[in-house]
Amino acid sequence: MTGASTAIWGVGTSAFGKQTELGGPQLAWQATVEALDDAGIRATDIDAVYAGTVFGDPGTVTRSLQQIGIVEVPVITIENACASGTSAFHEARLAVEAGRYERVLAFGIETMTVHFDGAISPIASDPDGAQGFAMPSIYGMSATRYRYEFGVTDEQMAAVAVKNRGHALGNPRAQHRKSVTVEQVLGSRMVADPITLFQCCSIADAAAAAVIGPLGESQDPGQEVAIRSSALRSGRLWDHTTDKVWGWDIVADTATQAYEAAGVGVGDIDVFEVHDAFTIGEIITTEALGMCELGEGGRLVESGHTAMGGAQPVNPSGGLLSRGHPLGATGLAQIAEIAWQLRGMASERQVPGARLGAVETMGGGTAGIDGNACVVTVLEQVG
Amino acid sequence: MTGASTAIWGVGTSAFGKQTELGGPQLAWQATVEALDDAGIRATDIDAVYAGTVFGDPGTVTRSLQQIGIVEVPVITIENACASGTSAFHEARLAVEAGRYERVLAFGIETMTVHFDGAISPIASDPDGAQGFAMPSIYGMSATRYRYEFGVTDEQMAAVAVKNRGHALGNPRAQHRKSVTVEQVLGSRMVADPITLFQCCSIADAAAAAVIGPLGESQDPGQEVAIRSSALRSGRLWDHTTDKVWGWDIVADTATQAYEAAGVGVGDIDVFEVHDAFTIGEIITTEALGMCELGEGGRLVESGHTAMGGAQPVNPSGGLLSRGHPLGATGLAQIAEIAWQLRGMASERQVPGARLGAVETMGGGTAGIDGNACVVTVLEQVG
Repeated sequence: MTGASTAIWGVGTSAFGKQTELGGPQLAWQATVEALDDAGIRATDIDAVYAGTVFGDPGTVTRSLQQIGIVEVPVITIENACASGTSAFHEARLAVEAGRYERVLAFGIETMTVHFDGAISPIASDPDGAQGFAMPSIYGMSATRYRYEFGVTDEQMAAVAVKNRGHALGNPRAQHRKSVTVEQVLGSRMVADPITLFQCCSIADAAAAAVIGPLGESQDPGQEVAIRSSALRSGRLWDHTTDKVWGWDIVADTATQAYEAAGVGVGDIDVFEVHDAFTIGEIITTEALGMCELGEGGRLVESGHTAMGGAQPVNPSGGLLSRGHPLGATGLAQIAEIAWQLRGMASERQVPGARLGAVETMGGGTAGIDGNACVVTVLEQVG
Repeated sequence: MTGASTAIWGVGTSAFGKQTELGGPQLAWQATVEALDDAGIRATDIDAVYAGTVFGDPGTVTRSLQQIGIVEVPVITIENACASGTSAFHEARLAVEAGRYERVLAFGIETMTVHFDGAISPIASDPDGAQGFAMPSIYGMSATRYRYEFGVTDEQMAAVAVKNRGHALGNPRAQHRKSVTVEQVLGSRMVADPITLFQCCSIADAAAAAVIGPLGESQDPGQEVAIRSSALRSGRLWDHTTDKVWGWDIVADTATQAYEAAGVGVGDIDVFEVHDAFTIGEIITTEALGMCELGEGGRLVESGHTAMGGAQPVNPSGGLLSRGHPLGATGLAQIAEIAWQLRGMASERQVPGARLGAVETMGGGTAGIDGNACVVTVLEQVG
């Protein structure tokens, strides 16, 4: 192992789904208490908190955590679009690496059904939201462009949903735990051509958390997960003359930075959790992560390479397409999944022998900007 | 000078007030370009951004800055109630101190008249907002309790507004630039007994920014302002049996931490910008900062100690009561004011010979929690 000085000491999540009977504080409690127990520490042991939320009311993160007993410490709440949770993870890790704190809680939460009452339309890519550019439309346009440039088929896109919904059969915390067929995916109602309903993640209420500390210094070092690297960046102004659709470059740039910092190549990584908010997103992302050539992402998923049992499973948890997408919680749920995988704790959905894993989260963007934020982190089994 | 390894290289702000004709990107441009020019660097020199906003739509900070040419770098947007701007400053400074970045933009913005159409009621102290505990009510209850415990008078509270509105006569960027008398303050309409209208800050649209880098490494080191220390913490569960009203302890704890880290005593500090969102707030804060004993804050302002020409002027800019309170921008506007004071650039409102300054920002809280966040930073003239 090279370079790692920080580790995940413990992780936790709530269940994912429509949970209006539970408020933010209850979801926060579930995720945080599980992460603290997993790390073998108490609420009062936490030195600082970095939290991610997009639509959380001002101060709710702080108050939710204060009610658990995390008081008088710095609490930094970050909004970084869909990458808010992994942005909090990134900042928490850098703070531990700098020696500023010993035990930091990275936390993410979103109670979306309360905010949006089940609708997806308000999650617009502002300021274009006023023109009807909600996120499904943006991804629909990407898919259309992609089809034109590289000939990706409807069946290839549907294969992403079929794979990930199949993976979720082994994930008791996922929102959607029912397998679907290519025919069902393509036959579900059209949301933003060519993206059908089963190709869209649903919104959800959930919280997720990770305790981060110096590598080798927890109560049970053998259960730590080393943080080999973490990269975070915002997008460039999008070049309309490029072959690459919106989001491709920011993911590729961030992944390159994360791989270099970790001293690994994409071929070394055994398991991935990536931002499959819409099926086309996973196709673009697997390419941008370097798992195949530009334009080959559709064929990659069809080949089974990214399925359970394939060489490099992507989204063993079922991904956002199955778990649902509670914005601020998503990134830390991805982190938790890879931590469980690397510790051999993923039961039915375990990727056998996984030693190196990666998480990618993509946040926002408009037609003119190549993404607001992307985070890629490389994690490794200890020992 | 002891301990400082980081410095403010440049500062900038927009004007403050109702500026609906200007959008967020325009206000961001004004503040950021002024700060970059002041620091003698270009947009593309910035390595990372820490931004503060409370009600900004997801992604707007990132997009505003991308349009200035700050692209492809980490952008971390922080919500920490009214202390969001100084929280961004705090995190930016820690990142430079850790050697992670060389030139970081700390940035704050809020376009409140667009969000709230001039009303103050939505700025509730959630979850109590549902019960009518908007911020003026919380401060009104503090004032009532304070009057009972320590006998602070209406005239002493009014004296804060008279002082700060008087100071603002020298601040061309303040929203309210008209002096008021004690009679006018007490005769203005009642908002939340005993807090009258002229004792409340108004909402505003504005942006503010600071460039932070290693001490002594800017193009013009003599114009830097050294960051001696910065402390940030969340509140404790409020002890209802204490003499101290809501917010007192968190300010005192944070200030103690900042003074110790800077190796200074409160008596060493020549000029302060503090969180006078309501008149009673400045009275409580000056006490909690250690400028006088518990219960003596009313007499302190009456004595002239905190006025221009007094021993330790507080809020030479006119404070929130005159500048207005664009939540995310406020903390960085306070930082900018102290930077100008320490560099002798505050023209009509210059505190003569100011060498050491402090900024305090208080964020949120409810009846049950002693504040969501407080930031105190100690700044020093270089050379």
